Amino acid sequence: MYLYLIRHGIAIDSDPVALNSMANDELRPLTKIGRKKIEQVADRLGKLELTFDLMITSPLVRARQTADILIDKQISPKLEVSQNLKPMGKIESWLIEWNARSTDSSVSTIALVGHEPNLSEWAELWIFGQVYHHLILKKGGIIGLKFSDHRMELGTAQLSCLVPPKIFIQKVG
Amino acid sequence: MYLYLIRHGIAIDSDPVALNSMANDELRPLTKIGRKKIEQVADRLGKLELTFDLMITSPLVRARQTADILIDKQISPKLEVSQNLKPMGKIESWLIEWNARSTDSSVSTIALVGHEPNLSEWAELWIFGQVYHHLILKKGGIIGLKFSDHRMELGTAQLSCLVPPKIFIQKVG
Repeated sequence: MYLYLIRHGIAIDSDPVALNSMANDELRPLTKIGRKKIEQVADRLGKLELTFDLMITSPLVRARQTADILIDKQISPKLEVSQNLKPMGKIESWLIEWNARSTDSSVSTIALVGHEPNLSEWAELWIFGQVYHHLILKKGGIIGLKFSDHRMELGTAQLSCLVPPKIFIQKVG
Repeated sequence: MYLYLIRHGIAIDSDPVALNSMANDELRPLTKIGRKKIEQVADRLGKLELTFDLMITSPLVRARQTADILIDKQISPKLEVSQNLKPMGKIESWLIEWNARSTDSSVSTIALVGHEPNLSEWAELWIFGQVYHHLILKKGGIIGLKFSDHRMELGTAQLSCLVPPKIFIQKVG
């Protein structure tokens, strides 16, 4: 079982004078550069044949837009939304949701699109069983975890990759 | 301060009937495919402008050949050899050797070329202060660590990347 954690791309800054800062944050879209970089990452994932059987995204606009670009580039055939992938979502809640699904043996590679600091904290919990805050996950970056089974218990993953977007994006010249 | 840990490329198998298995292991060269893959990784590091001020290699032939390819491709201007990077070398001994050097402020990015399980164990010691054996470092793969100073104390690094060679090597078509 392979799990990839993908941080959304660069989004517009939140508006500090907005009346409802929570709703404001949830609606921030990707910038033009943010969108372009995710497209470049997606193109390279396609060339590397690094694709997913299922992708699950945070419902926030910047994550959803990131996931939509990956879907458009055929990096995954299927997209779902999980409230547990919102900022401050809890890994335990996500695991309950995951393990409540009927096991689909055709799904062996999934990707979660979400936010920091959640994703790197979740990665550390999956790998080491505790949080160190010692993994750097840039916007548009990807962490790859390998599990021995579908249950994805904490402390049981191996880290197969941690790739900042700059390593995916080919420089010209 | 950035430190990259690079595992040597694919080498020929050791000869179990050799009279001196230790010397035999030390002399194993890269295979033709192993050499080709390291050349491809080096080409991509160059394109990404991911270069080092100094490279230090294990004296074993397969590591030394890996380092020589990186030098030939101008990924680093300078190569040194350290006995502490041999298989089973101790991180504490390497750190004593490192910290005994007069501080050269022009060196802010170094790479060590060596062996498993050393390199991924050293990475975990630098990041977390203990060994979990939960990092996967393939032959020709690279781990990137970020430190706040030149002393590189255990438990103080952040993991900036862990990249298997397949992610560096562009597929054709």
